[in-house]
Amino acid sequence: MPEISPGLFVDAVQGHFRTSAIKAAVELDVFTAIAEGADSAAAIGKRTGAAERGIQALADYLTVMGFLEKAGDRYKLTPSSAAFLDRRSPVFLGDIHKFLAAPEILRLTLTDPAAFVRNGGSVGLANTAPNDPVWVGFARYMAPFMAPAARATAAHFAGRKPAPGRILDIAAGHGLFGIALGRQFQACEVTALDWDSVLAVARENAAAAGLSGRFKTLPGNAFEVAFGGPYNIVLMPNFLHHFDEAACVALLVKARAALAPGGRVAIVEFVPNEDRVSPPIPAMFAYVMLSSTPAGTAFPPSALERMLTKAGFRKPEFLQLLRTPQTLVVAEPG
Amino acid sequence: MPEISPGLFVDAVQGHFRTSAIKAAVELDVFTAIAEGADSAAAIGKRTGAAERGIQALADYLTVMGFLEKAGDRYKLTPSSAAFLDRRSPVFLGDIHKFLAAPEILRLTLTDPAAFVRNGGSVGLANTAPNDPVWVGFARYMAPFMAPAARATAAHFAGRKPAPGRILDIAAGHGLFGIALGRQFQACEVTALDWDSVLAVARENAAAAGLSGRFKTLPGNAFEVAFGGPYNIVLMPNFLHHFDEAACVALLVKARAALAPGGRVAIVEFVPNEDRVSPPIPAMFAYVMLSSTPAGTAFPPSALERMLTKAGFRKPEFLQLLRTPQTLVVAEPG
Repeated sequence: MPEISPGLFVDAVQGHFRTSAIKAAVELDVFTAIAEGADSAAAIGKRTGAAERGIQALADYLTVMGFLEKAGDRYKLTPSSAAFLDRRSPVFLGDIHKFLAAPEILRLTLTDPAAFVRNGGSVGLANTAPNDPVWVGFARYMAPFMAPAARATAAHFAGRKPAPGRILDIAAGHGLFGIALGRQFQACEVTALDWDSVLAVARENAAAAGLSGRFKTLPGNAFEVAFGGPYNIVLMPNFLHHFDEAACVALLVKARAALAPGGRVAIVEFVPNEDRVSPPIPAMFAYVMLSSTPAGTAFPPSALERMLTKAGFRKPEFLQLLRTPQTLVVAEPG
Repeated sequence: MPEISPGLFVDAVQGHFRTSAIKAAVELDVFTAIAEGADSAAAIGKRTGAAERGIQALADYLTVMGFLEKAGDRYKLTPSSAAFLDRRSPVFLGDIHKFLAAPEILRLTLTDPAAFVRNGGSVGLANTAPNDPVWVGFARYMAPFMAPAARATAAHFAGRKPAPGRILDIAAGHGLFGIALGRQFQACEVTALDWDSVLAVARENAAAAGLSGRFKTLPGNAFEVAFGGPYNIVLMPNFLHHFDEAACVALLVKARAALAPGGRVAIVEFVPNEDRVSPPIPAMFAYVMLSSTPAGTAFPPSALERMLTKAGFRKPEFLQLLRTPQTLVVAEPG
């Protein structure tokens, strides 16, 4: 690309073609077909039930984007595509498109982006509306993406004594954070809070992890429902970013009141640096929240510390969750 | 990025956020505001009538993508953004999003991408429907993007003797290719063929270029309407890629019949290499056509040569149009 070029702009303005192609490829299981040995457009087409010319245009574009390698007429998976996009892989996460590029999300993102920028947040409640069905999709499809962060969070608490007896998982979604801690501390009881429709997914995941007997659910709005307790750990994975600082402080005050002596709040977030433009994924997440919530954002460390202090917590500990774009923020009452 | 990472996938599946942010930024004239000296989120917000927090999230994301540079709380344009996205720039092309990410295009691209891949082309006529209004948007908004290719095409014919007396511009759109030749050859008459609604835009552009007296229009379907002639040059800029090879051959036969002795057809296309995966823009264009036409594609040189031969032309000349992703293909009857 020459120094002055419209290339970056032309690529960005056509960003929707990336979403489109990756959605089609995962839905048709093109990556799985290639992994299973169908390596020409004709063979992939036969295996996926798609027209050869459709597969050729798709596979060529996937090659341009770096998902496939092409030699002659043969396609093969890159190591990353083999790991994450072959449906038979234990770390397959292709279906996250069913949440990240769900019709509701595409509508919020693309219908009138100038309107939510002008407004400083979504026009209407968007994804923060009560019982928004988008969160069932989140719980069902984002679990494989969140699993490494859940495991890393549990690992952080592994050495702590005494072992936690009761854990509250606020806005549990798929339930993976509470479940990871529940698997680690075999005697503890996990309570998952979320919309009732979402908790159905968490219960499925808890049962699959063998936690059923000590996995409880608390349906409703986290700002309204009584937390019960006291708890040794209150988890807030990927929840604060949906709200403004005042709402977050109110929620943190409520969480503090539900902690047992020696208890801690454990927040998982996309935390950009103070410059708000790095690293890329946490930094761009502020725009994702702008499009889909009235007042949410990606909080830099200073904002999280300010909110925790206002809510009566000591200076928090920030821990980068390895091999994820997320940060664990642990704080104890002051 | 580590060697094995889901980063590429997560970025692609969120491609629609790129489209969204660039659309918002151009519509709100954020780049122009910064160029005019509004360099903080507060100042940009004031100048564009947008909330400061909306602008902050947007400008930070634009920085992540490489459109802006940020130092402290101040934003500035990159040289490319200053050239192409400041509305006061003579080469401003921000409004191409009004075609490339128009609601109709987004619908075709995103509603059910697996369906058009499975089908080997759009389900229905999509952008090839008679009088499709999307082409009025193309004519109006894509002109600045196509201007360099039009100028380079005209430059190619500059030295040719004798000067062409009559030029036919098939699927003229904005009319820029015919107009560029018309400006170069002051005596020649240019006939632009397209849907009538589109020709209104071409006529405006021809008048602005001082061609009115020698600019004619021919409304209708290029496959049905009589071309008249004979012409010294028949232009086909960005038209063949909408159709299959048989339709292209039929059109080329018709074009050949309309040529004066010594006349030439001049095709402008996105021409990928024979591998169909390079260079990036022409290669990905096959997927764009898959989504929006029943049988169109980006033809590699071998396909263009085959079609021209079948239509009675000699071996064509391929010329890369400098500083554009397009290729000029010139052929004379055999």
